Amino acid sequence: MTHTSVAAYAAPAPKAPLERITIPRRELGAHDILIDIKYAGICHSDIHTVRAEWGDAGNSPIVDGNFPIVPGHEIAGVVTEVGSEVSRYEAGDRVGVGCFVDSCRECENCKSGLDQYCTGEPGMVNTYAGTGRDGQPTYGGYSTHIVVDENYALRIPDGIPLDGAAPLLCAGITLYSPLAHWKAGPGKKVAVVGLGGLGHMGVKIAHAMGAEVTVLSQSLRKKDDGLRLGADHYYATSDPATFERLAGTFDLIVNTVSANLDLNAYFELLKTDGTLVQLGVPENPLPVAPFALIGQRRSFAGSLIGGIAETQEMLDFCGEHGLAADIEVIGAEQINEAYERVLASDVRYRFVIDASTI
Amino acid sequence: MTHTSVAAYAAPAPKAPLERITIPRRELGAHDILIDIKYAGICHSDIHTVRAEWGDAGNSPIVDGNFPIVPGHEIAGVVTEVGSEVSRYEAGDRVGVGCFVDSCRECENCKSGLDQYCTGEPGMVNTYAGTGRDGQPTYGGYSTHIVVDENYALRIPDGIPLDGAAPLLCAGITLYSPLAHWKAGPGKKVAVVGLGGLGHMGVKIAHAMGAEVTVLSQSLRKKDDGLRLGADHYYATSDPATFERLAGTFDLIVNTVSANLDLNAYFELLKTDGTLVQLGVPENPLPVAPFALIGQRRSFAGSLIGGIAETQEMLDFCGEHGLAADIEVIGAEQINEAYERVLASDVRYRFVIDASTI
Repeated sequence: MTHTSVAAYAAPAPKAPLERITIPRRELGAHDILIDIKYAGICHSDIHTVRAEWGDAGNSPIVDGNFPIVPGHEIAGVVTEVGSEVSRYEAGDRVGVGCFVDSCRECENCKSGLDQYCTGEPGMVNTYAGTGRDGQPTYGGYSTHIVVDENYALRIPDGIPLDGAAPLLCAGITLYSPLAHWKAGPGKKVAVVGLGGLGHMGVKIAHAMGAEVTVLSQSLRKKDDGLRLGADHYYATSDPATFERLAGTFDLIVNTVSANLDLNAYFELLKTDGTLVQLGVPENPLPVAPFALIGQRRSFAGSLIGGIAETQEMLDFCGEHGLAADIEVIGAEQINEAYERVLASDVRYRFVIDASTI
Repeated sequence: MTHTSVAAYAAPAPKAPLERITIPRRELGAHDILIDIKYAGICHSDIHTVRAEWGDAGNSPIVDGNFPIVPGHEIAGVVTEVGSEVSRYEAGDRVGVGCFVDSCRECENCKSGLDQYCTGEPGMVNTYAGTGRDGQPTYGGYSTHIVVDENYALRIPDGIPLDGAAPLLCAGITLYSPLAHWKAGPGKKVAVVGLGGLGHMGVKIAHAMGAEVTVLSQSLRKKDDGLRLGADHYYATSDPATFERLAGTFDLIVNTVSANLDLNAYFELLKTDGTLVQLGVPENPLPVAPFALIGQRRSFAGSLIGGIAETQEMLDFCGEHGLAADIEVIGAEQINEAYERVLASDVRYRFVIDASTI
């Protein structure tokens, strides 16, 4: 197999429906592995990107994308071939690929395991809509195969099914990294805002870390789910009493909602020295009332996925605790419909494309 | 002396000029000390408060003030009398009073030295425009005498002159606390935004802590001063090149400006994991572009003065390092004019009222 041409689903132009196309995959380099993609998760970022909702705002994590765009950065599959100098993987290994497939490898961040914050040139290479070292556009996981450098692939523990593992590569690490960094664990009260693809992994992971977990969701519609996933408490943010009742409660709030919430109300739910971490990227700036922070030395922080080493740590953690995403597997022909359902919050909790249908 | 009646300068009504009045001071309680006020600093908060610029915005650190208001929470003086059970001070001691004169003393924050973030009832009692345990309004330092509980007074080290010490009680601790909390010190790059009353203390303290200090000021007008005060670098924020040149530079930025700056430009000056701490309280919310935080796991935090124990630590630190505020001493009849000059940034760097002129 010369991997020059593989099937994929792509957005041919901004806001256009996705359709089946053929894309090139590079020849296997010395450190590359060829992955037979089994499943690819559908992330809200995929939709933002193909609809060009971030690019214009100048605040995109995915900046240099040109159409056609093949989305997908929650990839799970099996290694089928390895380059001449590959040492970490062999054919048959169960592997994943997340949000980036390369970075400068030279900057302080890359050297210290913070490669997701690579400050070198050209910086982190996004799994799709990025530009690889070879100058070619990167294409994501809505495809049958992908070629990646072994250093940017992850090992999926045997205990995790590949379909449920796929969303861990973005949704899982996006929650694991801030929960670990801000030390969710026994004795800590953690709130997860929004119970979607990201939020449901936040509940599972924070619970497994030993924190006392509260879901703050617009309504109580998914309350039974939330408690089943591991939440200790569940409140509706549409009820103003929630904000009175929970004032000064949390050590950490992770906000997975990318809509523009009134964050000042949420800051008041933090204890002294508490932190609210923004994970979703809204299109517009969020108005912050400084006294909501000053009055109790609170922090408003952001966090972006996680580094490669930390992503492996997260997968191992999920393997040990028997965690995977709650998913709905779809065929490739359902992608456009699935996008509409994601936008309507009508998925529990992640769509995963069966790549054999591509 | 029965302390029932002392001279003070007060704002009789919102936005009215300050004028000399007579105010009551309580009888000396068992734990109270009577202080002969020598100097009182003029803080920008005094002006916000008497002009009622914070109250309406609902984000005031000084919330329950009724007029007349006697401002002043940068107080330096000498103890002249002590209550029957006072153990910490005696007549003749050089003491200061800062932004609060009581707190609940029971909550977790009060017990752990974070009394400035008291969460009990009635919470921190502001030195002026607050309500004391006796239910009476508190009056601040623009006065000849004050009675305070010994536990909320501070000892001023011998090496610091009382006039230069007064501003340490607010401006000094407001900078010392975040610089200490976010670990300014050797190897750390710290930026101080704004070179006013707060900022000039930030430069002195951060420099004494061993950090590499940069001033970010609107123009280069005060550059010589900034370098003399201890800054290593000085840049004008009116020059767009400043933001390109300093991208990703700082571990910590302390923002002393209470005007609405474009904070998103400043976030980009932080390293990965850097923190911008807001100290000034603008009247309006600040728009935060989430990706400026998310892209490098940066934090936007707030900090409010410091606790009593930390304020003593700050004074001792200033004593050891020979630090005091750069001041311009005025007579009480110049207060209204001084307010106008503060608003015009025409003071280097703090007005201090000679209380003997009251």
